Amino acid sequence: MIYLDNSATTKPYPEVLDTYRTVSERYFANPSSLHSLGGVSEHLLSRSREQAAALLHADPDEVVFTSGGTEGNNLAIKGTAFAYRNRGKHLIATSIEHASAGNAFSQLEELGFEVTYLPVNHDGRVAFEDFKKAYREDTILVSIMHVNNEVGTIQPVAEIGRFLKDKPKTVFHVDNVQGFSKVPLQLRESGIDLCTISGHKFHGPKGTGLLYVRKGIQLSPLFAGGGQEHQLRSGTENLPGICGMVKALRMTLAHESEGIAHLRKLQNRLFDGLKQIDNAVVHTPQSPLSSPHIVNVSFLGIKSEVLVHALEEEKIYVSTKSACSSKESGASEILKAMGVSDKEAEQAIRISLAYETTESEIDVFLKKLAEKVSQLKVVMK
Amino acid sequence: MIYLDNSATTKPYPEVLDTYRTVSERYFANPSSLHSLGGVSEHLLSRSREQAAALLHADPDEVVFTSGGTEGNNLAIKGTAFAYRNRGKHLIATSIEHASAGNAFSQLEELGFEVTYLPVNHDGRVAFEDFKKAYREDTILVSIMHVNNEVGTIQPVAEIGRFLKDKPKTVFHVDNVQGFSKVPLQLRESGIDLCTISGHKFHGPKGTGLLYVRKGIQLSPLFAGGGQEHQLRSGTENLPGICGMVKALRMTLAHESEGIAHLRKLQNRLFDGLKQIDNAVVHTPQSPLSSPHIVNVSFLGIKSEVLVHALEEEKIYVSTKSACSSKESGASEILKAMGVSDKEAEQAIRISLAYETTESEIDVFLKKLAEKVSQLKVVMK
Ligand SMILES: Cc1ncc(COP(=O)(O)O)c(C=O)c1O
Ligand SMILES: Cc1ncc(COP(=O)(O)O)c(C=O)c1O
Repeated sequence: MIYLDNSATTKPYPEVLDTYRTVSERYFANPSSLHSLGGVSEHLLSRSREQAAALLHADPDEVVFTSGGTEGNNLAIKGTAFAYRNRGKHLIATSIEHASAGNAFSQLEELGFEVTYLPVNHDGRVAFEDFKKAYREDTILVSIMHVNNEVGTIQPVAEIGRFLKDKPKTVFHVDNVQGFSKVPLQLRESGIDLCTISGHKFHGPKGTGLLYVRKGIQLSPLFAGGGQEHQLRSGTENLPGICGMVKALRMTLAHESEGIAHLRKLQNRLFDGLKQIDNAVVHTPQSPLSSPHIVNVSFLGIKSEVLVHALEEEKIYVSTKSACSSKESGASEILKAMGVSDKEAEQAIRISLAYETTESEIDVFLKKLAEKVSQLKVVMK
Repeated sequence: MIYLDNSATTKPYPEVLDTYRTVSERYFANPSSLHSLGGVSEHLLSRSREQAAALLHADPDEVVFTSGGTEGNNLAIKGTAFAYRNRGKHLIATSIEHASAGNAFSQLEELGFEVTYLPVNHDGRVAFEDFKKAYREDTILVSIMHVNNEVGTIQPVAEIGRFLKDKPKTVFHVDNVQGFSKVPLQLRESGIDLCTISGHKFHGPKGTGLLYVRKGIQLSPLFAGGGQEHQLRSGTENLPGICGMVKALRMTLAHESEGIAHLRKLQNRLFDGLKQIDNAVVHTPQSPLSSPHIVNVSFLGIKSEVLVHALEEEKIYVSTKSACSSKESGASEILKAMGVSDKEAEQAIRISLAYETTESEIDVFLKKLAEKVSQLKVVMK
């Protein structure tokens, strides 16, 4: 099997599953229980939080464990809007956010908030100048994804963060679900107040995630209740999931720089190989504008679904657009926002890599891809 | 170890952890991915949903997988209030809801909703007459817990449901986190529109739960996004967790009636044994007013924490009040609502059982309890 759909989800590391099982069996008590079994669970929870904080150069108080990226984005965006609604009603996002951010903004629009969606250029990138023009005195939240999930484009997050550093009345949220461990990002230095990551995108357990919440930022919780997670996310903690995710975090960051360099090499190999294939139009911009783990490409004349299924016959797995919208008909909204025609957008596939992807997998993939494309072109004629 | 804190959380069944691991390893793909690996995951998800639905006598469309009881309660309560806010602003709850319901109502009060909290009698039970008096034309939601988590009292859910059956403008939510598999409840027949359960309370994985949403009921999602879970709860599905929870559901319901009979026997043994211990004041009402898995009792003159820690020396684990508030100082709000004095409430412990608890564990517990109580009474004098 050659699995090239790592932006949809990754295979959990075996060590992560070992941790999950051990914690489930041995530390099953509720961390909130007063007895010593509960105390041991609570200790493990605190240690996990400290480890996660250290890995992210944050404070343990700034780490909120969640059930995933969708929760993180919704908590960050709606939690900020509700907490600061008396300060202003204006919000800024991009026109290419993931649905879990985009639809949270739609909900807020229905409730009377005003949202400015920044356009992107043909690379899928927001212009800092457009952001500056959109910014107002009553902007309470700016939410920008770091790396786009379909095309891989990196947004000018650090630049926007610098601008917002001396605007204490505006909260800055970054959806880093795709960027984490692919494109380094300094949270404090970049003026980021809230940052979402998701466990299953870096070989952690499904149903886990983390929201970084800078000290001093208030959020109206989505889950009110027993007051767990610094009152920001109540509910009995998923301790095995948390420990598993922190393990994946540690394992991933332990070889981050080699991992990124390796990904960039594979991406270049893909860019080069795709040049040899007729009618291939690459949408992902070159380094340094893109994350190294994503390549989005259209094959003119071949619908993406057809190619996805042709490759799956060879046990090669790639995707069309973002996983959660992949079964909706219609072209990718993101490619369309970049000015790609509907037709071409309907012919796009996304190839997404993990640190574990090998050069020879890429070579086999390119070979099979070329074969499939030429076979399908004959059929399509 | 004698673990008698099953209302806080339970130990997952080994079979549940086996399922978790197998699904994590073999079916790791995103159910939304278009390729065949995604298709297999999606198939497994559908099968799990069908099984859960069959076990609950519901429709697969009525099953929404969540991350736990706190999410279920918040989604049900706030989701209903937001979806039907133009219909009315009045809500009814009890004064003894779990914090995950109670604090969701507080958030709604801040946003301009009006909540009537029904009082309880000395058994911890709401009077149907009080409910009828509180009910209004503009009541959009009634939310009542089935079984109280600290005392075990059963609420008149079926009676209230019958009353609400011909009130189509009022949504009826039941928090069944403690009642599930302890006190049978027919969802359809009882006129219930929304019902919350939590996986870790019946030996399922932490971080899993299920919200029953009767067909036709609208909810404003807490997690907007890719549209998973019938658009009510977006986010990449925690498939291993879901399959693990459904396994626990099946295993639990497979011996529900023997399990309940067994619990009742153990509870009666506890009631009898406690009569032999000086100064024991039992707060849990007798059958049929209480769930068979909880006994709440004060030992006059001995603070609950002291007794919890004394028992833990014998590797016996019981709790004070509800786990999530157990570290806050002050007496249980629920006992206080029942008219128990502050002092007596501060001396209460909760003993909570599972199907797996044995008679001999109860006997050892009662013996050790009697010893500890008499030792502590000497110390306290
Ligand atoms: C950029 C981005 N944000 C958010 C999400 C949502 O994360 P999750 O699937 O963990 O809910 C995803 C992935 O699905 C994503 O790619
Ligand atoms: C009655 C009741 N409702 C809701 C909850 C919350 O469930 P969870 O711990 O799964 O968030 C609990 C348990 O903590 C409970 O006892």
